[in-house]
Amino acid sequence: MTINVSEIHKHAGEEIELKGWCYNFRSSGKIFFLQFRDGTGRVQVVYSKSDMTEDQWMILESLRLESSVVVRGVVKEDSRAPLGFELEGRFIQAIQIAPEGYPIGKKEHGPDFLLDHRHFWLRAESQWAVMRVRDRIITSTYEWFHENGFVKFDTPILTPTSCEGTTELFEMDYFSDEGEGSATKAYLAQSGQLYLEAGIMSLGRAFDFGPVFRAEKSKTRRHLTEFWMMDAEAAFIEHEGNMAIQEALICRIVQDVLKHCQYELKVLGRDTAPLEKVQAPFVHITHQEAVAKLRGMGSDIGEMDDLGADDETLLTQQYDRPIFLEKYPAAVKAFYMKRDPQDPTRCLNNDLLAPEGYGEIIGGSQREDDYETLMMRLKEHNLDPKPFEWYVDLRRYGSVPHSGFGYGLERIVAWLCGLHHVRETIPFPRLMNRLTP
Amino acid sequence: MTINVSEIHKHAGEEIELKGWCYNFRSSGKIFFLQFRDGTGRVQVVYSKSDMTEDQWMILESLRLESSVVVRGVVKEDSRAPLGFELEGRFIQAIQIAPEGYPIGKKEHGPDFLLDHRHFWLRAESQWAVMRVRDRIITSTYEWFHENGFVKFDTPILTPTSCEGTTELFEMDYFSDEGEGSATKAYLAQSGQLYLEAGIMSLGRAFDFGPVFRAEKSKTRRHLTEFWMMDAEAAFIEHEGNMAIQEALICRIVQDVLKHCQYELKVLGRDTAPLEKVQAPFVHITHQEAVAKLRGMGSDIGEMDDLGADDETLLTQQYDRPIFLEKYPAAVKAFYMKRDPQDPTRCLNNDLLAPEGYGEIIGGSQREDDYETLMMRLKEHNLDPKPFEWYVDLRRYGSVPHSGFGYGLERIVAWLCGLHHVRETIPFPRLMNRLTP
Repeated sequence: MTINVSEIHKHAGEEIELKGWCYNFRSSGKIFFLQFRDGTGRVQVVYSKSDMTEDQWMILESLRLESSVVVRGVVKEDSRAPLGFELEGRFIQAIQIAPEGYPIGKKEHGPDFLLDHRHFWLRAESQWAVMRVRDRIITSTYEWFHENGFVKFDTPILTPTSCEGTTELFEMDYFSDEGEGSATKAYLAQSGQLYLEAGIMSLGRAFDFGPVFRAEKSKTRRHLTEFWMMDAEAAFIEHEGNMAIQEALICRIVQDVLKHCQYELKVLGRDTAPLEKVQAPFVHITHQEAVAKLRGMGSDIGEMDDLGADDETLLTQQYDRPIFLEKYPAAVKAFYMKRDPQDPTRCLNNDLLAPEGYGEIIGGSQREDDYETLMMRLKEHNLDPKPFEWYVDLRRYGSVPHSGFGYGLERIVAWLCGLHHVRETIPFPRLMNRLTP
Repeated sequence: MTINVSEIHKHAGEEIELKGWCYNFRSSGKIFFLQFRDGTGRVQVVYSKSDMTEDQWMILESLRLESSVVVRGVVKEDSRAPLGFELEGRFIQAIQIAPEGYPIGKKEHGPDFLLDHRHFWLRAESQWAVMRVRDRIITSTYEWFHENGFVKFDTPILTPTSCEGTTELFEMDYFSDEGEGSATKAYLAQSGQLYLEAGIMSLGRAFDFGPVFRAEKSKTRRHLTEFWMMDAEAAFIEHEGNMAIQEALICRIVQDVLKHCQYELKVLGRDTAPLEKVQAPFVHITHQEAVAKLRGMGSDIGEMDDLGADDETLLTQQYDRPIFLEKYPAAVKAFYMKRDPQDPTRCLNNDLLAPEGYGEIIGGSQREDDYETLMMRLKEHNLDPKPFEWYVDLRRYGSVPHSGFGYGLERIVAWLCGLHHVRETIPFPRLMNRLTP
């Protein structure tokens, strides 16, 4: 009976068959230890020469790292094994014997070497674990949104202009105007938010979740040029309600990862104690309070400055729960954010900072819903109102108070997996100097 | 108590509050009928002038199409109403009174007008219904894959080369080589399949689901330049097993849409009888059989030709279940498809054609898993092996039989919703001549 390693605990004492790869092996000459993986888990298969035919033993001795195999054996409980079981080997079949020299060995490799061999590096248990945690975060996000009335609404990647008017956009020729010869320019989206705002006027609540692109000449450990972003937007939700949604979503994600990915977190050496503390209520502090606190700790941040990465790190080290950092100076924020009626120099926005120095994982705000005010904001930000006509029109016909936020998937993966650099959090990372493999 | 229209059946006899939009209205001078929607559903609110203050009545009379409102009233059963209920109005508050002249009225609009006003058109009940069916298809896809051991694996959009070596790619400058001045070219992915094949060597089974791009100069009703594709790939699955997975997935999607989207399908005027017939086992015919059949029906298709859209339509009209069209001539198919050992001029591939003339919704195949053969195929297809080095390397270290397939989301939405053109199946369609709004 062919099963997966993940089902092995149901078959104690039975003979079963597994199909997968030999990720390591050693032999005493009489006993052969085959380290087996199949994508669902890892298990050791122990073969005794005395129990096998000569041909079978020769197959074992011909195996090299990453050869593909079919193994059969009897499931034995073994308290020393990671899953609590190992196989008493009965049969081996080699599907394909890999040559000597599998590029990724036990020695330490530098990041460039590993990224050049990303197609192989993905097979390492650490990378397998990261991909499974990533999948769990995605799954929990879909589940939570659907349980809470949000509809998936796929916003476009090819756009005629930028969302926030920045210049960090990848540009390309769309189709040439027939006859004219001049090509239309298209830009890769940095966010689907503005389109999502149109969506909620139909659907009430909506989210998107897809790749976005930033042509930033930035080489930090928190930046990719292509990454996955989830944007959510809800009608009739104001600033406080917006943060309540973010808090509930993040709590759910963290709880689900703790519930379903204990093995993966262990593989990654992730201390789960800080994750257990991620519970509502999160910390709330205003930008004004944060600046005062940071200056007290020696930061040279100005009263109306955005927080730098170092400031974020410093701040998150003061608390063991995520921090809602609210009401930034409007001058450093986007045109569409609604101002705080108590202090119109500030926005009804929030960042959400993850603990342990991980910093910003979410940015959100209530959106300006008044037509005249929004037109004025476009002018203040020196943005051409023409490409935003459809967007401001949403405020002419049935404008409602509404809010939204976006999370960067890779930053959440890095946080929950305890990774230093986001380059490991996505299957094939794209960086300023890396477009391959 | 503020609720959603979707919950109204739980509150018969109670006074409730709803927040949303007035999508239509009429008044007899004494009775005001407000057609209300909130994203979760639609309900009529009936106000009597005799029960209201002068101020409240004046608010009702000031309403225009798509004004945003808060309504309160008592839930009454009404068998004539679509949801079986209406509200006896008690209170009205206008959040924002829309001006006269909401662009989308009751008269017929042409497709260009509607697409120019896509941000408003999305509010039409038909478009709302399409977006909800789309969401259901997405949700069922995620659910089915997770229940069957597939891990979400986000393949890259920015790629250094094309998957299948075609020239229908959007090209852009990546970052300039520092000092050199010559920019690296990047291309937008048409499929994530090759990357997914690397993923399953770690994870066993994986799927991606994201936007892909084709710079095809094609203006048919089945083509978009940006559309959402789901690719799935599984280790140790061969041609027959691959089709079994496709069949199970499509059956699940159709059953879920029938179960959860009856109201939406009714709004769309979709005859559900043909959808009820979508059950296993699907029809299987080989390309060779299909060509013979088509020629018998008058098509001029050649023995070794790919099927055209008209051929597909003709064929699907012969059956009331989806059709697996198997074993195409290798000459018209991609380099990575494994050949049929019974007839090496043909591939172990399949298309899946949806009934009622909808045609191809899935393409899949077993993949060539032998290193030497794959290298030869690259040559036969005149492809530079250099950018595929990492891909063929997957056959050197632990190659296993494996198969996969991809579905085009918009074509499935069009089929299940009974739509003629895919342009209505995505929030903001991108066509050769359309990049806005």
